[in-house]
Amino acid sequence: MKARVHVMLKHGVLDPQGEAVRHALGAMGFDKVEGVRQGKVIDLQLAEGASEADVTAMCEKLLANTVIESYSIEMQG
Amino acid sequence: MKARVHVMLKHGVLDPQGEAVRHALGAMGFDKVEGVRQGKVIDLQLAEGASEADVTAMCEKLLANTVIESYSIEMQG
Repeated sequence: MKARVHVMLKHGVLDPQGEAVRHALGAMGFDKVEGVRQGKVIDLQLAEGASEADVTAMCEKLLANTVIESYSIEMQG
Repeated sequence: MKARVHVMLKHGVLDPQGEAVRHALGAMGFDKVEGVRQGKVIDLQLAEGASEADVTAMCEKLLANTVIESYSIEMQG
């Protein structure tokens, strides 16, 4: 089974990476871009018997810095 | 309107970041993790009139290094 985890900076936390992308896109002529936020996506291949609770524990302990980042989990199959 | 872009290393391209996460999870006792791939997620806030073709152009020209990375686009509303 698989799980996909998204880790994004929380709203209100400055995202310089996203801002740099927005600036670069603007400079390249993509003038319809109003905002960019960049985060991480982590695809986990899990053994049988792993649960969403396991993935939540991984997020809390390692994958996300919950002070400034939020995460979401999608279990796939 | 919004678009979400996922940029992942292509299959077969070594992913040292994902491998480091897998190793760290194993060391923390998460023994049901068989593989990890890490990528980027880019959330774009777009002005009215922007199309998926615009986002594809952004991916090809800036967001993804198409030699080693693949991308997927989800348009949202």
